[in-house]
Amino acid sequence: MNYPARMRTPHATAASATLALMASLTSPAVAEEGMWLPNAIPAAELKAKHGFEATPALLEHLQKSAVRFSTGGSGSIVSANGLVMTNHHVGSDMLAKLSTPERDLLKTGFLARDRGQELPCPDLELNVLWSIEDVTDRVNAAARGAADVAAAGAARRKAITAIEDESEKATGLTSEVVTLWQGSRYHLYRYRTYRDVRLVFAPETAIAFFGGDADNFEFPRYDLDCCFFRIYEDGKPLRPGHFLEWDADGAKEGELVFTWGHPGSTNRLYTADHVAFMRDVEEPMGLRRLWRSEVKQTTFMGRGAEEARIVREDFFGTQNGRKATQGLLDALQDPALVESKRAEEAALLKRLAGKPEAKDFEDGRRMVAESLEAWKRLAPDYFALERRMRGGELAGIARALLRMKAEDAKPSADRLPEYGDANRESLESGLYSPAPIYPQLEIERMTWMLSGLAEERGLDDPLVKRLLAGKGPRARATELVRGTKLADVAARRAPDMNDPMIAFMASIDADARAARKAWEDQVQSPQRDGYAKIAAARFAAFGDSVYPDATFTLRMSYGTVKGWTTEDGTKVPAFTTLGGTFTRAESRAGDPAFELPKSWIDARAKLSQATPFNLVSTNDIIGGNSGSPMVDAQGRVVGLIFDGNLDSLAGDVVFDMTRNRAVSVDVRGMLEAMRTVYDAGALVTELTTRGDAR
Amino acid sequence: MNYPARMRTPHATAASATLALMASLTSPAVAEEGMWLPNAIPAAELKAKHGFEATPALLEHLQKSAVRFSTGGSGSIVSANGLVMTNHHVGSDMLAKLSTPERDLLKTGFLARDRGQELPCPDLELNVLWSIEDVTDRVNAAARGAADVAAAGAARRKAITAIEDESEKATGLTSEVVTLWQGSRYHLYRYRTYRDVRLVFAPETAIAFFGGDADNFEFPRYDLDCCFFRIYEDGKPLRPGHFLEWDADGAKEGELVFTWGHPGSTNRLYTADHVAFMRDVEEPMGLRRLWRSEVKQTTFMGRGAEEARIVREDFFGTQNGRKATQGLLDALQDPALVESKRAEEAALLKRLAGKPEAKDFEDGRRMVAESLEAWKRLAPDYFALERRMRGGELAGIARALLRMKAEDAKPSADRLPEYGDANRESLESGLYSPAPIYPQLEIERMTWMLSGLAEERGLDDPLVKRLLAGKGPRARATELVRGTKLADVAARRAPDMNDPMIAFMASIDADARAARKAWEDQVQSPQRDGYAKIAAARFAAFGDSVYPDATFTLRMSYGTVKGWTTEDGTKVPAFTTLGGTFTRAESRAGDPAFELPKSWIDARAKLSQATPFNLVSTNDIIGGNSGSPMVDAQGRVVGLIFDGNLDSLAGDVVFDMTRNRAVSVDVRGMLEAMRTVYDAGALVTELTTRGDAR
Repeated sequence: MNYPARMRTPHATAASATLALMASLTSPAVAEEGMWLPNAIPAAELKAKHGFEATPALLEHLQKSAVRFSTGGSGSIVSANGLVMTNHHVGSDMLAKLSTPERDLLKTGFLARDRGQELPCPDLELNVLWSIEDVTDRVNAAARGAADVAAAGAARRKAITAIEDESEKATGLTSEVVTLWQGSRYHLYRYRTYRDVRLVFAPETAIAFFGGDADNFEFPRYDLDCCFFRIYEDGKPLRPGHFLEWDADGAKEGELVFTWGHPGSTNRLYTADHVAFMRDVEEPMGLRRLWRSEVKQTTFMGRGAEEARIVREDFFGTQNGRKATQGLLDALQDPALVESKRAEEAALLKRLAGKPEAKDFEDGRRMVAESLEAWKRLAPDYFALERRMRGGELAGIARALLRMKAEDAKPSADRLPEYGDANRESLESGLYSPAPIYPQLEIERMTWMLSGLAEERGLDDPLVKRLLAGKGPRARATELVRGTKLADVAARRAPDMNDPMIAFMASIDADARAARKAWEDQVQSPQRDGYAKIAAARFAAFGDSVYPDATFTLRMSYGTVKGWTTEDGTKVPAFTTLGGTFTRAESRAGDPAFELPKSWIDARAKLSQATPFNLVSTNDIIGGNSGSPMVDAQGRVVGLIFDGNLDSLAGDVVFDMTRNRAVSVDVRGMLEAMRTVYDAGALVTELTTRGDAR
Repeated sequence: MNYPARMRTPHATAASATLALMASLTSPAVAEEGMWLPNAIPAAELKAKHGFEATPALLEHLQKSAVRFSTGGSGSIVSANGLVMTNHHVGSDMLAKLSTPERDLLKTGFLARDRGQELPCPDLELNVLWSIEDVTDRVNAAARGAADVAAAGAARRKAITAIEDESEKATGLTSEVVTLWQGSRYHLYRYRTYRDVRLVFAPETAIAFFGGDADNFEFPRYDLDCCFFRIYEDGKPLRPGHFLEWDADGAKEGELVFTWGHPGSTNRLYTADHVAFMRDVEEPMGLRRLWRSEVKQTTFMGRGAEEARIVREDFFGTQNGRKATQGLLDALQDPALVESKRAEEAALLKRLAGKPEAKDFEDGRRMVAESLEAWKRLAPDYFALERRMRGGELAGIARALLRMKAEDAKPSADRLPEYGDANRESLESGLYSPAPIYPQLEIERMTWMLSGLAEERGLDDPLVKRLLAGKGPRARATELVRGTKLADVAARRAPDMNDPMIAFMASIDADARAARKAWEDQVQSPQRDGYAKIAAARFAAFGDSVYPDATFTLRMSYGTVKGWTTEDGTKVPAFTTLGGTFTRAESRAGDPAFELPKSWIDARAKLSQATPFNLVSTNDIIGGNSGSPMVDAQGRVVGLIFDGNLDSLAGDVVFDMTRNRAVSVDVRGMLEAMRTVYDAGALVTELTTRGDAR
């Protein structure tokens, strides 16, 4: 899962995480830190500190109004007629798929003037969390008596697939077992799933992503990063049991606010060794890959307008990932960060002195350290052949068809999980998607993959030799893309297993599966076991106040609307205004990333300049939270999360409330723009009345 | 030396070097291949094939009209008043140094309306080759009886410095011993050196580099990539003994043309193992570094107009290097290329069967292979600490001051060569240059260096620890740049050895020197000895028809004006026209790289549309040749080399006459643009009359 989330760090931020700011790493959550499970929110703390009463009814209402996007973001149901709010950069994948050379929705934006104009999305899936069940005992029971850590891990994975299949059959709900606290607990999450989703409104990228890479993760900010879809059921707009109302007055400075969204991944429970490993090995490796992609995509875009259009979404994703990873690495490369993790581990061990959990912690730490050695040994094959095997859409389709055939011959619980029964509908929705495939881009992607393998392994490597089949990377890529029939959806439904692209993927499938198994047995399983022991030690020391790392499942965070003071003493206010957008554009005249769309230039005089546009708050969020609703104490929408500031980019491993800020679009800015720039009165009415009006 | 040369391959070219095209690698030069020494041109072949008579007078005239730029390019004297023609992208380094936030010469271009307006360059040095002397025996004699290869190499380096010092003292000419055939011959080159050089004319970057990275190494092409300087001597324009006249009628299709310039480096004599090493190790490593720099520089440019201005030259250089290296790697990654090298080695050995040189060849090949193992082992330290130690201008100045002090205590022949007496004037010209230094860019460069070391070695590496001194890379870089006084030229002339930047460089100087010595002893010396043996074998097989690899010294290439047919059958004509420029701009409207400057838009109607603008020829050139004059059989200027096509990018290791093309600005296009767009009538007169008129 790639989180399109415009949320994780860039190099302009001085990597300045200090010891004091990192108290939260292994100790209980402090301040407004925390991505809380919807069934384990810190109710007492909220009551004590903020007088906030988390009633079961309100919690259920918020949970069932929240939406998870299959493409990797968050959203919420915001009208009685199934309207869904998310970010433009979460919806942009669909905008790209719905575009053609003649109709570039990313450039022009889109507004359906009536239901009939709403555009069905080719392969989008929205999920609403319906229930949670703790299945830890059953998962662990399956592993009891296993010969070793690897066998235990395999037994657990098999048990998980069985639980998911069983649940799906019994309830009809999409069922997913989530591994929490990096391996300490297993919860079964059940979702209502919607696959008839239609595009309602999107502004132009020029205002949704105003400032581009330069202003990404920055604040002050002026982005209308919103996008609206509508869920249909049986051909009619969904009449949801729950949806969020809008507070057209927005939030005030200092107000208590909540986000309900799906943070993708954090690693705050990582050991100091593991964080040092991220710093010295994993993140630099990720950055190298991103630098390469960014330059390759940039040069492809330079070939012409159509090339630029078809690769733009990938390109923005790469830039975003690069800025986020760079920001995280900047924070990690401050020697103080890992030192503080080491100090905290020492403090934890001191606290547990004499208890059996102290040994658990040390055992766990050792297992994690060992898994990291295996990581270094196994990563080249695992990443190249399995986890990061790229090569374009057609290569991905070819692998899925190949594996589906092989896996379908086995019972569901024995399959690779993504081919299990519980996942079948999602798999097919992607596999048979009518979304466009561009041969010229496919050739590029395959060339990038093949030349990348050649760069890493050399041309005399047996695998590289096999894949290139005596040709250069581009010649080979061209032959494969021109030769395959898989661009045609019908050819995917009845695949010819001799198709050149399927044959190509088949030629490395045994190696890829072996690399995956080695990874699961020697990296993943020992790491989970190790972290289960570490989590046990933390629970012993701190009880329930330890929230689990993010898992792209629903989490609540709370915080307050609040600016901050930068390291060099600049005070950054909490809000920007619509009027500020024009000032910013003028100050950066000549830079295409700061060129406002014509609709905004035309509407300037009519727009209420003082209307709040973007705002910051202390909520603890990360990539995947993009599109989360920000609600007030009554559960009404006051904003739409779309980014974090530069200081938030360390959030993968630490949370620093003094400067870490979540960035949202203010409801007031959205409404004023809809009314004045886009003449979208019906949409405004649907959002601000109880929605039945439309 | 970095050759700003817009000349070496990008990934759009199918890597298709076939066996047939590579006959030239170890066999004698065929067709119009060859970068010939000025004292060893293939006169018989030119006479036989083209009826061209290479008289000593003409050769001396061309040699003494050619100019080498200290910044890494070529040029020529083109008037009786010391006017020098080169490329805009060769002069652009000076244009940047002469610019300020208020006067951006790269953007606006420049024309001196009279001598008084000509702008003195801060630290440019132009060299004209005056004589050549073979010193092979003396250099080798110094190594006789040396204990081992390393000692022999050290003895040769010492002898070279002594020869240079001696020659410089005796003649007053800049003296440089050049290693030819990768180590088989040593020639002493003496140059007249000019340091009072002034800017006369430069067009806007928008037309000099029209099409930017997208069209770099492409053809058809529409670039006015020219720049004119004037040499002064004793405060007056130079009255040169030789200068090139212009042929205002230009060259015709099929005409014989010559370039006289300074190709930087080729590796055509490399063994097959060495080429495979380039493909699998060296070039991928170089690309990774370039990708990183390109993204870092792009994001810095994104911060604002001034940031974009001050890093733009570096950025173009990075993009150019990336496209060139990518093109070379594309060619190398065709398995056929190395296979053909292996086949040629087998053929050479067969030809030498029974002769002692067969053993020489095999010994040499083995020594080279061993040196490559040492390369892999030593490169991380050598590149990080010595050869590619970056960190900005101030870091470079600090290292030079530190080493100058240490080296000056020794006799010249014992010093690191760049601190020898023969090089003193050049060294000081750079060291005490008043060219602007930008603290914000210096902080970036130092941050990039420090974080790069941390990425490669990890934060627990002792060297990284020492350099970071407990801080993150950006914090440390900021402290060093803010703390040093070396931005002030006066502070460099009387340096405080406790200056923080000098102290920083001192803290790794012992490691850096050790890394350099290990490299020289274990990589460079064995490689030179190995290639000396290999060259002996080649001479035995082919005699004098083997030209040496490029060494950034003067070379002649001959060729014909000629289009080509691409792999997919498209015929590319030899010439483009001024009118085509506007058509191209329209077809890429909206892309900033294709935006014409106002001067051209305004002049469109007046410009003679059919005038030839750029042209291609079969001349064998490479990076460093940028700015070379292209002359006709009478030695008159018909064009100005500025690029190669995509197929030329394999030229580092192979020359493929069927598609490898040199790209020039046509004299007719230059003259028409000067007259009509820039109203530079005096310049036109100076170029087209015997120049005394002005």
